[in-house]
Amino acid sequence: MPQALYFKPTYERLRDKIHAAAPDLDVVLYDEEGKLWHLGREVTLAQVSPEYFWIHSELFASPRLKDYFKLMLACPSIRWLHTINTGLDLLPYSDVLNKGVTITNNHAQAIAIAEYVFAQVLAYYHDISELRSKQREQVWKAKPFREIHGSHWLLVGFGEIGQAIAKRAKAFGATVTAVRRQQNTAGLADAVVTPAQLPQVLPQADVVVIAAAANASSRNMVDAAFLQAMKDKSVFINIARGDLVVEEALKQALDVGKPEFAILDVLKQEPPAQDSWVWQHPRVALTPHSSNAGSGMRQRSEQNFLTNLANISAGRPLQNVVSQRDIV
Amino acid sequence: MPQALYFKPTYERLRDKIHAAAPDLDVVLYDEEGKLWHLGREVTLAQVSPEYFWIHSELFASPRLKDYFKLMLACPSIRWLHTINTGLDLLPYSDVLNKGVTITNNHAQAIAIAEYVFAQVLAYYHDISELRSKQREQVWKAKPFREIHGSHWLLVGFGEIGQAIAKRAKAFGATVTAVRRQQNTAGLADAVVTPAQLPQVLPQADVVVIAAAANASSRNMVDAAFLQAMKDKSVFINIARGDLVVEEALKQALDVGKPEFAILDVLKQEPPAQDSWVWQHPRVALTPHSSNAGSGMRQRSEQNFLTNLANISAGRPLQNVVSQRDIV
Repeated sequence: MPQALYFKPTYERLRDKIHAAAPDLDVVLYDEEGKLWHLGREVTLAQVSPEYFWIHSELFASPRLKDYFKLMLACPSIRWLHTINTGLDLLPYSDVLNKGVTITNNHAQAIAIAEYVFAQVLAYYHDISELRSKQREQVWKAKPFREIHGSHWLLVGFGEIGQAIAKRAKAFGATVTAVRRQQNTAGLADAVVTPAQLPQVLPQADVVVIAAAANASSRNMVDAAFLQAMKDKSVFINIARGDLVVEEALKQALDVGKPEFAILDVLKQEPPAQDSWVWQHPRVALTPHSSNAGSGMRQRSEQNFLTNLANISAGRPLQNVVSQRDIV
Repeated sequence: MPQALYFKPTYERLRDKIHAAAPDLDVVLYDEEGKLWHLGREVTLAQVSPEYFWIHSELFASPRLKDYFKLMLACPSIRWLHTINTGLDLLPYSDVLNKGVTITNNHAQAIAIAEYVFAQVLAYYHDISELRSKQREQVWKAKPFREIHGSHWLLVGFGEIGQAIAKRAKAFGATVTAVRRQQNTAGLADAVVTPAQLPQVLPQADVVVIAAAANASSRNMVDAAFLQAMKDKSVFINIARGDLVVEEALKQALDVGKPEFAILDVLKQEPPAQDSWVWQHPRVALTPHSSNAGSGMRQRSEQNFLTNLANISAGRPLQNVVSQRDIV
């Protein structure tokens, strides 16, 4: 009977679903004080042999998260970790991977992030703040708006998030170019180019979305040359990682109005310093790393985990297995 | 050689395209002072025999619009009118139709209106105004948002506008129910019901969009009973005509919070009186009949006209022919 080591609040909330997915599972609980429990007794890590680990919302928001990583790294029996994260660069996932552990990650964020992107782009195109002001001032005067229809979207990174954005952009009648190393786009992009071809496609893009993992080849890819190649009146969006952007170059580009507007959900330093330029720049919409905070996110993420738990219990392949290249 | 009677500023801007679509057309011009011109000379209506008429953006915005209707009604040779309008209830189109004139209308607005609907619903779900305030206050605190994914949309009216909304809602992962007299939905709705079935479907709908023509059967359809059948936390949107809504009933429904929010682009009286409740109601987003003001609207509308001009010149059927039932 395989053993799992789960955070107590998550396990207690989802006990029935966990045992429905894996009827033979033997669960060790990790509580909010950092104690381990098995069959109603406090135990040490040496007394158990957990193979399955799970980082979900309660643990992610808890001060125990770092200790859970220490447990995993200290545990000789660990085989599989499922995590609520999509990007794995901000926590010591690579150390876990280097132990030979299979990590599966979470793409439940893609739907939420795609809705965030459309909410923000449309709010900018329609100037929602101005519409609300005019209403309050009781002024009745039509204001033309830019359409997404007929615009060109460049999606830098074309994993689950890029594809969720592409699906919606196509329904709006936009042209979509995907930037990814692999050339398959699941029929969701009109064209696919490699990162080396960015200088050719950036001048055509009305909307540029950074949706790539942070790794050695993507870090600081949005630099002065990238930004100078962008189109007049273009919109720049980063829902990936602040690490991909040279922020001083972005500030200088926004100061001269190209791109015309930046939608930033992530920064190198979060939150930014109180004296950072980014808070009050007139060409920036800043949100607090919350593009994934959609109402359906937790339930989808749980379903992803439960599906994988059923898979591993039945000897089927796991979904969303992370490779070393996704991290480093 | 068929004769057309067009507003001078529109004709001069599009002369080449008009003659490419209809090489044999003989054009009479109606100028901004209300004078008629043919072959460089001022003429009277009795001296010409125009068959084709066109109401486009310049004429629509001009004080000559009413006189153009008088011309059409006085003209014995008129056979076809193409108009930039979609809804034909606010101008004397039925008098033109009653003369036996074929009227074709414009569905270029559908794309713009669908984008407006998503801009407004997403701005409400994401609370864009609050996000912008928090940025200005330099507060970094994530705020969960409702997702369109998994929501249920009820589209009352399923012409070009309803279908354009449905296409985007489906890409977002919403369920779509269409309300229309005909049962075909071009594969864009999950279900289609008749207006008589509204009481059964209203309680399930998270988003209700009024996208129907104003006529005898739709006038005041959104009354107290309609609104009381709506779901908790639902959003009501009217991008059709104020005539479809009993506004006092809507105010009372909003006062008690069901629907939770109304997005109103149209009202019975436009603009509303300065002492109208609608300007400052905390559950209302009001816009000045501008949901069609998208950047691609005029070009699409011109293309629709030119296609029909080519059609009639070549003896092919016209597109978007209006029937009596669409108006009265």
